[in-house]
Amino acid sequence: MATITTAEILCVGTELLLGDIVNTNAAFLSKRLAELGICVYRHTSVGDNPQRLKAALASALAEADLVITSGGLGPTYDDLTKETVAEFFGRPMSMHEPSLEKIRNYFAATGRAITKNNEKQAMMPEGATVLENNYGTAPALAIYDEKSNKTVIMLPGPPGELTKVFNEQVVPYLKNSSDSVIVSKNIYIFGIGESAVEEKIKDIMTSSANPSVAPYCKEGEVRLRVTAKAKDEYTAAQMCDSTIQRIYDSEVGEYIYGTDADSLESTLVKALSEKGLTICCAESLTGGLIGERITTISGSSQVFKGGFITYTNEAKEALVGVSHSTLEAYSAVSSQTAMEMARGARIALGTDIAISATGIAGPSGGTPEAPVGTVFIGLSTKNGESYKRLSLSSSRSREYIRIVSASNAIHMALKVTKGLTDN
Amino acid sequence: MATITTAEILCVGTELLLGDIVNTNAAFLSKRLAELGICVYRHTSVGDNPQRLKAALASALAEADLVITSGGLGPTYDDLTKETVAEFFGRPMSMHEPSLEKIRNYFAATGRAITKNNEKQAMMPEGATVLENNYGTAPALAIYDEKSNKTVIMLPGPPGELTKVFNEQVVPYLKNSSDSVIVSKNIYIFGIGESAVEEKIKDIMTSSANPSVAPYCKEGEVRLRVTAKAKDEYTAAQMCDSTIQRIYDSEVGEYIYGTDADSLESTLVKALSEKGLTICCAESLTGGLIGERITTISGSSQVFKGGFITYTNEAKEALVGVSHSTLEAYSAVSSQTAMEMARGARIALGTDIAISATGIAGPSGGTPEAPVGTVFIGLSTKNGESYKRLSLSSSRSREYIRIVSASNAIHMALKVTKGLTDN
Repeated sequence: MATITTAEILCVGTELLLGDIVNTNAAFLSKRLAELGICVYRHTSVGDNPQRLKAALASALAEADLVITSGGLGPTYDDLTKETVAEFFGRPMSMHEPSLEKIRNYFAATGRAITKNNEKQAMMPEGATVLENNYGTAPALAIYDEKSNKTVIMLPGPPGELTKVFNEQVVPYLKNSSDSVIVSKNIYIFGIGESAVEEKIKDIMTSSANPSVAPYCKEGEVRLRVTAKAKDEYTAAQMCDSTIQRIYDSEVGEYIYGTDADSLESTLVKALSEKGLTICCAESLTGGLIGERITTISGSSQVFKGGFITYTNEAKEALVGVSHSTLEAYSAVSSQTAMEMARGARIALGTDIAISATGIAGPSGGTPEAPVGTVFIGLSTKNGESYKRLSLSSSRSREYIRIVSASNAIHMALKVTKGLTDN
Repeated sequence: MATITTAEILCVGTELLLGDIVNTNAAFLSKRLAELGICVYRHTSVGDNPQRLKAALASALAEADLVITSGGLGPTYDDLTKETVAEFFGRPMSMHEPSLEKIRNYFAATGRAITKNNEKQAMMPEGATVLENNYGTAPALAIYDEKSNKTVIMLPGPPGELTKVFNEQVVPYLKNSSDSVIVSKNIYIFGIGESAVEEKIKDIMTSSANPSVAPYCKEGEVRLRVTAKAKDEYTAAQMCDSTIQRIYDSEVGEYIYGTDADSLESTLVKALSEKGLTICCAESLTGGLIGERITTISGSSQVFKGGFITYTNEAKEALVGVSHSTLEAYSAVSSQTAMEMARGARIALGTDIAISATGIAGPSGGTPEAPVGTVFIGLSTKNGESYKRLSLSSSRSREYIRIVSASNAIHMALKVTKGLTDN
């Protein structure tokens, strides 16, 4: 029996190298292998070219215990994965009668005639373990080479087939080969940049490789992934939790909005639901993005009543009652306007909370007093109004400024939700 | 000067090997390189591990004229792509003052203190060509090694930065390395599926490899990319134009809404601007997405006055005056409600056109009369109201149903805009 701790993923298909399809198989396989405690070292994609495939296979097998291939099991002349692997290990091919019968039945059921090409899909290298594919004509297979103690698992390329065959056939096959489990948990952070996070918890991030702590960032948000490897799931989860507690106790703690939380908006919808509170919004520069993000969450109709897109000054006055004198005295991009927008929306829709955003998304429209990237987030509750001023870099894209503005509004609502109670 | 005909793509980042993110960069780069006439031989992804990165780099440079890397240019200690490539070519690193100043300005503009980590992003290998990144703190760079006649281009990992830096900086850099010119033009199609498009213009798509015609589809839209290769830009553009004319003259012609149009929303904003018309929206299931998409377009404030997110029945009555009896008699998901929403929004904001969307995005909330995927798009102008009913498959995701609904609303506004005049 093989002992498998490391793997490489080798995807075969010229369509990948032309950029015609995005390689979701590599990400799927990597995630599932990590859960099984198998470390993935490398992904490689090559075209339908036997020489390059053979070189890539040799290189992968030189490094890893296991190589999983995707693609190249189809009926056509350029599907050569199985033949190339068989040749690599010096295994002759022969007809696998049960697979051939299955393919024949498949064609009979769909009323089509089987072609010579399809029969090729039932040819198997000597000593292969056939992994049944109930979702297409290409059977998957595994070869374990005792001499080198290496395993190659070959899966069909279409993601709909690959994922199901993996879950049904490959997982049981591999579970016999691993003696450890990997668990990952995510910490979600808002209001502080990636490098500041790292500076504040450098000791935690570098003190141990197990659990490991890795940062990922997207517009204005940071996620820390804590990953532990242990002999069983309970121990690995405990190791993650103790590292997570250390991060909560650090200077980063106050910026954490959730663990395995998905997103700011899902955390907000959950918090509002739990407290029985409702929300609405009034949006200028975000143009609907705040409402759109909240209503992305299934079930948001219980807490989100609606909103106003007050893109012009006229709409700010007519729809949410921003006073003409406020706009004259302070302009549309001001804390006063932001708070009046939120107040007007809250009154019109009768919600507990209202959030607003007004500012300059650019690329044009900036002034010396309010350059591109100047944004005011407004908040209104029964307890009063408040605001937050953002000064984002004017070199940022319009898209970035709008996303970060919406995130700040949602985050502000989340913070106030935690402190409010329904009555 | 390098002559580049072959390339490999080398993506760096442990998050890829953990399956946390899907590698869209490899597909994007492959597609764009193909358009530039450069063949991609292999994709490789490795973790943030300098030994494995170095081995992958050596292997890629042994095969291809050009290696494009993505990732590993960030500020943190495990971002090592630049350092590894510099070491590979034996180039010492030194501070690139213009990049440092840019990073300093970036931090100053956002009122944050620069960290030592961020300064590292301005260090450059000797002889590198810095490729400006206006979308993040990590400058991109290219190194041409005369001895081996090989080029390495290093790009930041976040797709939002990589795609823009590639288009703005890398394309001109590479165009100097090719003796032919490739021109691509896009045809934008709405209201017909990809396979129907392919059936109708099969002869045009298969008759010639130059120009080539390749379809891409996203939610409810089809784009045809026409690509021609010639000795100069004028000739290549002419070749594209003649194929585009053939497609306009085909059965697909009536579904084309633009050539090199970018998007439905940009086409709408342009059409409204040209006619001096204004628009607003009332959104239920789209929750702000219609407004968000229109206001994505810089300059939309000239034509878009605002909108209403009427997520609940209460909001439909209070904000845009849908009558209680309409909601009672026909429900919120009906042509009557859709048209009253549009009418109410148009009157409240005094625009020439108003669009609305109401329906069931799912996954729950469907009924036998209005299953998930049932959507009504409403339109109101001075000439009256109309609507369109969509019956999208209930197996589609919430996100898909919302996007296609918003696209249909925007498309309906675009069609009516072409027929209206300001007065």
